[in-house]
Amino acid sequence: MFKRVLIANRGEIAVRVARACRELGIRSIAVHSTADRDSEALRLADEAVQIGPAPARRSYLDPAAVISAALKAGADAIHPGYGFLSEDPDFAEICGAYDITFIGPPAPLMRELGDKARARAMMAQAGLPTLAGSDGAVLDEATAEEVAARIGFPLIIKAVAGGGGRGMTVVREPGDLLTAYRRTRADALALFGDGRVYMERYVAAARHVEVQVIADGHGRAVHLGERDCSVQRRHQKLLEETPAPNLPRQLTGKMSEMAVHGARALGYVGAGTFEFLVDDEGRFTFMEINCRIQVEHPVTEEVTGIDLVQEQIKVAAGMPLSIAQTDVERRGVSIECRVNTEDPERGFAPTAGTLTDFRPPGGPFTRVDSHAFTGWRVPPDYDSLLAKVVVWAPDRQRALARMDRALAEMVVEGPGVRTTAGFLRRVLADETFRKGDHTTSIVAEMSESEVSGPEDRARKQGLENGPGGRA
Amino acid sequence: MFKRVLIANRGEIAVRVARACRELGIRSIAVHSTADRDSEALRLADEAVQIGPAPARRSYLDPAAVISAALKAGADAIHPGYGFLSEDPDFAEICGAYDITFIGPPAPLMRELGDKARARAMMAQAGLPTLAGSDGAVLDEATAEEVAARIGFPLIIKAVAGGGGRGMTVVREPGDLLTAYRRTRADALALFGDGRVYMERYVAAARHVEVQVIADGHGRAVHLGERDCSVQRRHQKLLEETPAPNLPRQLTGKMSEMAVHGARALGYVGAGTFEFLVDDEGRFTFMEINCRIQVEHPVTEEVTGIDLVQEQIKVAAGMPLSIAQTDVERRGVSIECRVNTEDPERGFAPTAGTLTDFRPPGGPFTRVDSHAFTGWRVPPDYDSLLAKVVVWAPDRQRALARMDRALAEMVVEGPGVRTTAGFLRRVLADETFRKGDHTTSIVAEMSESEVSGPEDRARKQGLENGPGGRA
Repeated sequence: MFKRVLIANRGEIAVRVARACRELGIRSIAVHSTADRDSEALRLADEAVQIGPAPARRSYLDPAAVISAALKAGADAIHPGYGFLSEDPDFAEICGAYDITFIGPPAPLMRELGDKARARAMMAQAGLPTLAGSDGAVLDEATAEEVAARIGFPLIIKAVAGGGGRGMTVVREPGDLLTAYRRTRADALALFGDGRVYMERYVAAARHVEVQVIADGHGRAVHLGERDCSVQRRHQKLLEETPAPNLPRQLTGKMSEMAVHGARALGYVGAGTFEFLVDDEGRFTFMEINCRIQVEHPVTEEVTGIDLVQEQIKVAAGMPLSIAQTDVERRGVSIECRVNTEDPERGFAPTAGTLTDFRPPGGPFTRVDSHAFTGWRVPPDYDSLLAKVVVWAPDRQRALARMDRALAEMVVEGPGVRTTAGFLRRVLADETFRKGDHTTSIVAEMSESEVSGPEDRARKQGLENGPGGRA
Repeated sequence: MFKRVLIANRGEIAVRVARACRELGIRSIAVHSTADRDSEALRLADEAVQIGPAPARRSYLDPAAVISAALKAGADAIHPGYGFLSEDPDFAEICGAYDITFIGPPAPLMRELGDKARARAMMAQAGLPTLAGSDGAVLDEATAEEVAARIGFPLIIKAVAGGGGRGMTVVREPGDLLTAYRRTRADALALFGDGRVYMERYVAAARHVEVQVIADGHGRAVHLGERDCSVQRRHQKLLEETPAPNLPRQLTGKMSEMAVHGARALGYVGAGTFEFLVDDEGRFTFMEINCRIQVEHPVTEEVTGIDLVQEQIKVAAGMPLSIAQTDVERRGVSIECRVNTEDPERGFAPTAGTLTDFRPPGGPFTRVDSHAFTGWRVPPDYDSLLAKVVVWAPDRQRALARMDRALAEMVVEGPGVRTTAGFLRRVLADETFRKGDHTTSIVAEMSESEVSGPEDRARKQGLENGPGGRA
């Protein structure tokens, strides 16, 4: 087992990894930017190294800064969390060159799967259903027009190097194709340093359902069931749950089997997620593989009792998986809400400032993964995830009631700071969502008064209105 | 189902009941003393009524104040929590007279079981093993000497109306008998308003193991397994866990069956706990029944997935239990630590003051039941329970690691405020405890340097020493 693990991330996931290390008896080293010098991860890790200023490209995204810190601290492994360097095969290779284990899949595999067009082709070959689309990257406008003619509209243009819901454009009519093609290429280049894009059929009313897999280096791969991540706003996940509501067990079971089959075909090692779309007739198609731990991993942990981050670290250290497929027993329902420091009243614009009062929810079957505390200053430099509130219950109805209770009791106060907690409560109350009939369009279809509710408006007016309006 | 439930308690259990009510869609009414006017329970409940000043006998222990508040608020039920009026049959009867449901067993049964000597006799008659002891209360010194001669030494004298580990004296030699008898009677009178005592054989090296039962008014009674509460200091529980470590499943299974049998024999309704002693040869004997929800109920919830407070409320409302014995599936291990605002350096003397920094632990399989928050003033008027930290893991070894991590990351800062978190971490590290070989003597047998560790001493000297020493 590793002796010293460097955590190349920040925020709640850095805290999550520090906790896993401590429980495994591994010393953890937190790295931080100057903007994060009062971070909770620094306190929970055993050691801390400052690696540069904000923005992230000068610290968390700088491979040299991270590797230097790892060498200085004598780390034998690096946990990249999600985002930042977590899916960068070059960084994984540099780690290898310095004899530091990158906690993730092997670099060559990451490189192949990071090419989303290539991943789609590989999985189609392995027998997974995929959407009609381009055969790899679409390199010029003429090809774009040919592919579009073949697969029809609506279609989606996606960055080959994309991820996290960025670098994609839906095209509904032929007349918009070339403008969209050029714009997505430009966006892709700006966002990922790689302007290549690919195209596929766009499924409008779809559910986003993904399968968690974990595989060791000894030929064992298991799935831990699915997660429904259909509640999204502009391709950003807001609420995730397991099991996927209102989908036949047979369907999600089949998807889970296909994901394990895909992982085996790839020789996958580590924790990974197979993302699928499920259309309104219950057909599923493979979208992409995420080669990292995901934001929404806690819901899987809650129903299986398995600590995914600990398992991920153990597998990276070369240990065999301690669980076989038959050991994975899923119990009840778990939901996660991402509470972001954003203002639903102003188009979910990020907010920042010092938290004068932060009280996470607590009590039965309520888990909070957060790096926030009273007195902490939310920096303006990073993404706006403040806390993941996760609940468990024997069934979905009780899980929804519990989540509403948890969000209602949460306190996040600070001048200028707004959160999405009230908005998330309105999603929970949405009739379509409660029935499990929603698709990824749910937020786009919500009315303005549902998106920014009375408590947001009341807060704007400086009114006090009980626990529900405080968060 | 009830529409409005008044919570006749304070602190973490008032918060716990408010959460259960909210999840069940019941309006909750918190009562509070003037000393508790900034209590978290007030914020989490739907309404609040002030019922008098500290000390408790002028508010939480005053039946008239509580009933008046319930009538004023139009409550159709009262949840008494634990302590205070929770085991007072007179109060339960007054509730009945005002047509308010007391959430607990029927008053006549509470009265019988509140007489500990009578409860012991009833359970002996139902076939539960009991220790050799007096036949009911020992009303004079001559009888005390006769009983002592019959059962031998060491023996224990206990208040008939006792509970919560108070009003009991161990007698090791005949020469100490009468002094102890007189003192226990005087203590019992002062503590419980009832000077009657009874006697039984004292088992020195014993485990305290209790069984959670819940029964409805329709003849169904189930057990939810056992809890080991052997880690005590002066009969006060400090750490509880389930399953009981290092005890044969056959033994705890038999105890659980006997508890359900006892509950059925009594016609018990509600949540209740059957307390047993287990001696070093694995023999168990019945001690007493607690007619209320207990501080340590969360560990049972964590392994069964059952919300005990919600079930308790439903059963009190006359609903049938939704679970049969075969539905009770226990998974993994759960441990609870009671973090008290006490100073281990000074004989666990209570401390009070304003919390300048309170950060509960969080993350995977970590639950906190607490009423504390940054800025809250710990009042000097009540018991010192600040937070219950509860963890779950697939096995005991991982649960111990998780609890140590959780306690290490917890922050409780404030001038004059000390906690038992560091002390609890030393219990977790104790070799006898880790092996599950401990008895209720474990804390008494710890050396002074184990009881108050280096971080307590360092803190005393104003030194900073990392996360471990902050709590």
